[in-house]
Amino acid sequence: MSGAMIFPSRRLRATPFTARVTELGVSGYTVYNHMLLPTMFKGLREDYVHLKKYAQIWDVAGERQVEIAGPDAHKLACMISARDLSNAQVGRCYYAPICDQHGKMINDPVALRLADDKYWFSIADSDLLLWVQGIALGMDLDVEICEPDVSPLAVQGPMAEDLLVEVFGESIRDIKFFRFAGFPFKGRVLNIARSGWSKQGGFEIYLDDSSLGDDLWDTIWAKGEKYNLRPGCPNLIERIESGLLSYGNDMNREDTPLEIGLEKFIKLDGEADFIGKAALIAQRDAGITKRLMGIEMDGDEMTPVSMPEAVTVNDQQVGILTSAVYSPDSEANIGFTMIAVEHAHDGAEVVVNSAQGVRKGVICEIPVLWSRVQRRK
Amino acid sequence: MSGAMIFPSRRLRATPFTARVTELGVSGYTVYNHMLLPTMFKGLREDYVHLKKYAQIWDVAGERQVEIAGPDAHKLACMISARDLSNAQVGRCYYAPICDQHGKMINDPVALRLADDKYWFSIADSDLLLWVQGIALGMDLDVEICEPDVSPLAVQGPMAEDLLVEVFGESIRDIKFFRFAGFPFKGRVLNIARSGWSKQGGFEIYLDDSSLGDDLWDTIWAKGEKYNLRPGCPNLIERIESGLLSYGNDMNREDTPLEIGLEKFIKLDGEADFIGKAALIAQRDAGITKRLMGIEMDGDEMTPVSMPEAVTVNDQQVGILTSAVYSPDSEANIGFTMIAVEHAHDGAEVVVNSAQGVRKGVICEIPVLWSRVQRRK
Repeated sequence: MSGAMIFPSRRLRATPFTARVTELGVSGYTVYNHMLLPTMFKGLREDYVHLKKYAQIWDVAGERQVEIAGPDAHKLACMISARDLSNAQVGRCYYAPICDQHGKMINDPVALRLADDKYWFSIADSDLLLWVQGIALGMDLDVEICEPDVSPLAVQGPMAEDLLVEVFGESIRDIKFFRFAGFPFKGRVLNIARSGWSKQGGFEIYLDDSSLGDDLWDTIWAKGEKYNLRPGCPNLIERIESGLLSYGNDMNREDTPLEIGLEKFIKLDGEADFIGKAALIAQRDAGITKRLMGIEMDGDEMTPVSMPEAVTVNDQQVGILTSAVYSPDSEANIGFTMIAVEHAHDGAEVVVNSAQGVRKGVICEIPVLWSRVQRRK
Repeated sequence: MSGAMIFPSRRLRATPFTARVTELGVSGYTVYNHMLLPTMFKGLREDYVHLKKYAQIWDVAGERQVEIAGPDAHKLACMISARDLSNAQVGRCYYAPICDQHGKMINDPVALRLADDKYWFSIADSDLLLWVQGIALGMDLDVEICEPDVSPLAVQGPMAEDLLVEVFGESIRDIKFFRFAGFPFKGRVLNIARSGWSKQGGFEIYLDDSSLGDDLWDTIWAKGEKYNLRPGCPNLIERIESGLLSYGNDMNREDTPLEIGLEKFIKLDGEADFIGKAALIAQRDAGITKRLMGIEMDGDEMTPVSMPEAVTVNDQQVGILTSAVYSPDSEANIGFTMIAVEHAHDGAEVVVNSAQGVRKGVICEIPVLWSRVQRRK
């Protein structure tokens, strides 16, 4: 299927930045929340090398916002989020796994508390809006829920901060990690967060007026030359190296936060209730049977794995490979695997029946995977 | 963007038929319900000519099923559907617009009543599952809701019936339009409906075991030679000619069933309540301000329109073009437009500011569009 083209239609929504992205030679797309999301420009590896050294501007408008506002907004936000938001602060971002009543992952957004009575959930690829609206309607809550005209534009890479200082001023440096503040732009005030889907540092600018897409892009672009600014996008190699999980790829509605290793983001022992809590407590008590882990594989340089491939021990399938690719900086094929708990430990040896050949693999914790990459660099 | 490739990942799920589709040379994909949906094989026009003459086999697994089962299944189905399902018969299919509380379209599935206490909603491209689950959870209804392992395979075209008779027997002919019945296959009983996303006749086979994907495809393929069977997919030209609307393209959450012309499928005067009913009654009383219509445009043969383009009268925008393409059989550029009611009548003259050049357009009712195509053939 790698040779097939994406077929344009209105249903695959363009973004406020699609015109610029197209002009600048995007070479691959995916579809994310019914919207076009660039996946490649000059090439996966070239984009990766550049991202880790300079600054890139990313059209991540596909990270749509679910806005919850009104008297019951905080109550509803706490109810849907497995992350404890009861003391959420205005101006902060929270990685917030969302579960159904069985504890299965529906989405893993970043929640931004905009005001006491207003949240944005910046979502991964599923229609969280419908879940939230359905619950609010069924429970007759006093909230307004919508997908506002908000399109994040990310600036990522080690030079992102210096670049944005030139555009928005020195106070950009004062934004701490996973916090946001308002910055004036063309008569509006845009929320800018220190966040983004890489570990190279950077910001996400929440543009709340589509008609300013070209303006915002061009304003940043104009300051970009000395930072070797290029168009970019979330990079598969970098995000696996960095241990960043992708909803739909490394987890989906078959998995719970405990199986994905998100224990530190959820609070099962507190008083606050949330949807899925009882199921997750039951699972914790019974013990999980599978867990998401890092994996290194031998053999030739792997191209991206696009289908779940069998992970085996003694010719018995014990898991699936959810994402994998060759990482130049770690000089290894690395990825994630959802694997039976008895093999979910550092150093466990497995065999992967990959379409790219049978390979020996070694399991590791995901943070270990990341630190190995750092060490080898 | 037409030159960009689709970038493979697990998140864009393969179907039980993807292997065959790939072997047989699919040349374009879209993403539908997080799943790969073929959009082209030999070419839009070649596929179209063939579809109207022979038989095609279509991987439409992206039409996922939302299964609602249990004591409250019928109650919930009636509550979410703007189509009156209170007397829905087992073995029948119902085109069922689904609205939110404001009467806006969330999805336009086909509902299949499988049993007194069990429905499948065969969905268009949005996560209806989350809406239905959220409502059921909020209202504490006694239902089980899931996305079962069900993948529709369509056989479409004027020779589809004769072909399927060779595979499943003469009783295929007894299935009336929008009804379904069970047929044995490899130890299972598959629901087969006389339905599908073309007006060329045909069936949809609801395969409920992914592991039989190759088997089902190959069994049909083996009988295909005398019907000139080819792989195909919903065809943009044919579906516009036939007046088949596409959720996300010709309507979305900005539109109500009254604006889309679905009055005949909904029942506002009955006693049965459903989500959105009050809002739709209010809109009917106040009068709609825009309506989806057919349109014919002059000028050179148009390639598919992928972005909403402005429809104008006296240089004022009065609507958008939602889909359009050149139709060989009607020898005209045809499409759909969401247009202000004062221009929503047969014969109204407009100008379309298309990326493919400014064109004169004439408005018509959608059934009229279809009948014009029939007349010219």
